[in-house]
Amino acid sequence: MTNKLLVDEMKERVFAANLALPKAELVKLTWGNVSEINREAGLIVIKPSGVSYQTMQMKDMVVTDLNGEVLEKGMKPSSDLATHVELYKAFKEINSVVHTHSKHAVMWAQAGREIPAYGTTHADTFYGVVPCTRQLSSEEVTSAYEEETGKVIVETFNEKKIDPSAVPGVLVYGHGPFTWGKTPQQAVENSIVLDEIAEMACATEVVNDSVMPIPQYLLDKHFFRKHGKNAYYGQS
Amino acid sequence: MTNKLLVDEMKERVFAANLALPKAELVKLTWGNVSEINREAGLIVIKPSGVSYQTMQMKDMVVTDLNGEVLEKGMKPSSDLATHVELYKAFKEINSVVHTHSKHAVMWAQAGREIPAYGTTHADTFYGVVPCTRQLSSEEVTSAYEEETGKVIVETFNEKKIDPSAVPGVLVYGHGPFTWGKTPQQAVENSIVLDEIAEMACATEVVNDSVMPIPQYLLDKHFFRKHGKNAYYGQS
Amino acid sequence: MTNKLLVDEMKERVFAANLALPKAELVKLTWGNVSEINREAGLIVIKPSGVSYQTMQMKDMVVTDLNGEVLEKGMKPSSDLATHVELYKAFKEINSVVHTHSKHAVMWAQAGREIPAYGTTHADTFYGVVPCTRQLSSEEVTSAYEEETGKVIVETFNEKKIDPSAVPGVLVYGHGPFTWGKTPQQAVENSIVLDEIAEMACATEVVNDSVMPIPQYLLDKHFFRKHGKNAYYGQS
Amino acid sequence: MTNKLLVDEMKERVFAANLALPKAELVKLTWGNVSEINREAGLIVIKPSGVSYQTMQMKDMVVTDLNGEVLEKGMKPSSDLATHVELYKAFKEINSVVHTHSKHAVMWAQAGREIPAYGTTHADTFYGVVPCTRQLSSEEVTSAYEEETGKVIVETFNEKKIDPSAVPGVLVYGHGPFTWGKTPQQAVENSIVLDEIAEMACATEVVNDSVMPIPQYLLDKHFFRKHGKNAYYGQS
Repeated sequence: MTNKLLVDEMKERVFAANLALPKAELVKLTWGNVSEINREAGLIVIKPSGVSYQTMQMKDMVVTDLNGEVLEKGMKPSSDLATHVELYKAFKEINSVVHTHSKHAVMWAQAGREIPAYGTTHADTFYGVVPCTRQLSSEEVTSAYEEETGKVIVETFNEKKIDPSAVPGVLVYGHGPFTWGKTPQQAVENSIVLDEIAEMACATEVVNDSVMPIPQYLLDKHFFRKHGKNAYYGQS
Repeated sequence: MTNKLLVDEMKERVFAANLALPKAELVKLTWGNVSEINREAGLIVIKPSGVSYQTMQMKDMVVTDLNGEVLEKGMKPSSDLATHVELYKAFKEINSVVHTHSKHAVMWAQAGREIPAYGTTHADTFYGVVPCTRQLSSEEVTSAYEEETGKVIVETFNEKKIDPSAVPGVLVYGHGPFTWGKTPQQAVENSIVLDEIAEMACATEVVNDSVMPIPQYLLDKHFFRKHGKNAYYGQS
Repeated sequence: MTNKLLVDEMKERVFAANLALPKAELVKLTWGNVSEINREAGLIVIKPSGVSYQTMQMKDMVVTDLNGEVLEKGMKPSSDLATHVELYKAFKEINSVVHTHSKHAVMWAQAGREIPAYGTTHADTFYGVVPCTRQLSSEEVTSAYEEETGKVIVETFNEKKIDPSAVPGVLVYGHGPFTWGKTPQQAVENSIVLDEIAEMACATEVVNDSVMPIPQYLLDKHFFRKHGKNAYYGQS
Repeated sequence: MTNKLLVDEMKERVFAANLALPKAELVKLTWGNVSEINREAGLIVIKPSGVSYQTMQMKDMVVTDLNGEVLEKGMKPSSDLATHVELYKAFKEINSVVHTHSKHAVMWAQAGREIPAYGTTHADTFYGVVPCTRQLSSEEVTSAYEEETGKVIVETFNEKKIDPSAVPGVLVYGHGPFTWGKTPQQAVENSIVLDEIAEMACATEVVNDSVMPIPQYLLDKHFFRKHGKNAYYGQS
């Protein structure tokens, strides 16, 4: 496949995935962004910064190298690009990153709490708690903010020994969610699920203020029903 | 009626009922499933596993025998089929089962609480509390999980002496709701009502933290206004 | 105007007002009903019982006399007709009644609490608390339930000395809201406002658990800005 | 540009911005209003009072002078015009004002609380708390209510030393939100953001009842990423 064809296909997927965000009511105005990486071709494609979802076109998607340097003349990339780059560098198995300000995930991020696995809806997609990063320091915010946001996500997964393939999302303290996946569509679906389980978890605590997470064996059952070599959900 | 005609009509109803789930905002992505049984013909028709509601076609509905053994070449049935089979075996008067992860019913399932009958909206459809099962054991989850899910629902109705015709739904602890009915349409409507009363009940407790269920005589009045030989709601 | 023309116009307004309920997301399935009265002509027109909003036609509207006796062959009237009749008998200035199970108004009805006037959104339509009736007794429920529901609403307004023109709605304990107005459209709008202020009031208490109602002078200002001879809101 | 052309363009923007309110689900019925000012031309254009969004036409927009005196024959202006006029007099850098009864902003206004800056979604648009005015006195309400509403907003910004360009919105105690901006579109977007952060802030406190605002350095980073001479969000 020529590089031109490959870039066009990446733009098509990234464009479609970005449009899926307002459709799923995960973003308002120009919020949110989706990117895709192709490590072999050395390319990242990402939403342009601050562009309306109503007027945005496929050709507006911005192409960069693996360090986030823009390769084509055109629009400026999403201001969150450096966060995406950090995640791609550390999480080798992912090919797409999504950032939104979806309201229920943001609530937990603002509350500074990880989301406990209260049910099978959670376990089907996230194998354990969805972690929340520590707060960034003043130095981190005032120096290379977006890059440091990526670094603190990676630090969180390393310190808590969480596998980013098994827990494809995170809450950044005081900010909001990032999710990822093998494809832009999967990464967007993980954002949809994350917001849904965030809403469910909040209300679960309202209904029962001493609720406990589901047991490990149920978490195992549901996650591995959908993921890994013994998965039996779906048609494949 | 030939078996072919009968199967086609079952597929049509099951297909329509499945599509009603995302339309009523009870499911996201590929979540949820509806089945119908015809005991005399020895047939169950159910949604295929993990298929998108946008691309799913009527012919994709999966036909099985009364034990859930697939009878036609084609797609794999919903992974929750074994739960449906258990419910059909125990609850002789029902012809359709619906499973969703509708958010408000899930909240109560995750909280591990039965939904009290706080009002007539509840009583019109559910004659008393909507029960919540006990938690499944590790052995039950790791052996025949979906079948055991059905068994624990039946156990719940037996132990609490609840008539599944009078309370056409349940919460599975840490998981979510199942509802049933005489037809796929009725079973779906019961899922719609269940989610609505789950949301209402949660907020009712927020507005009044010492709220009590409605008295038995009001529960009787509303349920039997719509159900049984003295019903006078509707046109029939 | 001939009686035929008058009935047709009543049916048209009642039909349109009933369809406005699902559009405003105040009802699900076949819930809810709107009626209109013409006292001089001795007629009430009301939604038929248990009919789907998708298939309901204008001609299905049921015509009764002022005691709720059906005057035309056709569908059965809403099972709540007797409640409407009681309200028309007691509240001479109203021409339309609406009943819904709109979720936020139901929450307060189930909680058994009147809705305090926490803001100007409330005061623009309801001049003071929206009252909640006492619970009906077993005798009232088992004898003439729907009629007694009307009677307990009237009792509530009498005992609390509330003018039904100034507070065009009520919560029936453990059941849900009724609203009314000069026209079916106005009565529906009052149901829309009632559900909105019910939702706002619940969350207001979450945000501030010692919140107080607005002062009487602000209640006066907003209500009389829209109502009565010194009103100056709108174009008339 | 002739005065006629200028007025037509103002009407077009004000009309479009008013229609954006129900589309963004910030208003119900005839609630809400948007205006635009042109100080050099001595003109304000505002929504007419109490007109349905479904039937409202561009030509119905009302033209007044800088004191709110109507200049053209036609409809009556929004009853909140005097509030807009006060804001325009005091806040020289704004060209548009929006008033809604959007439910989440109203909840905080009714609770009488300012909205803390709990996250970057807030900080992207509002540089610090969104303040809540004091309660108006009986004298203020009974004399020139709408004008006094404007005055108490200005008083709030003066006393708390808040720059209305940096915090383009306010909650009026017991009433609801006003927002503003350089253009009607921007003022509407600020209303959208205000309602969203109001909802997020309420739930953030539910998830964590001892949550703290984000640190000043993160507030600075996000606000100045989008605003001022060092802004780098967007395409300009």
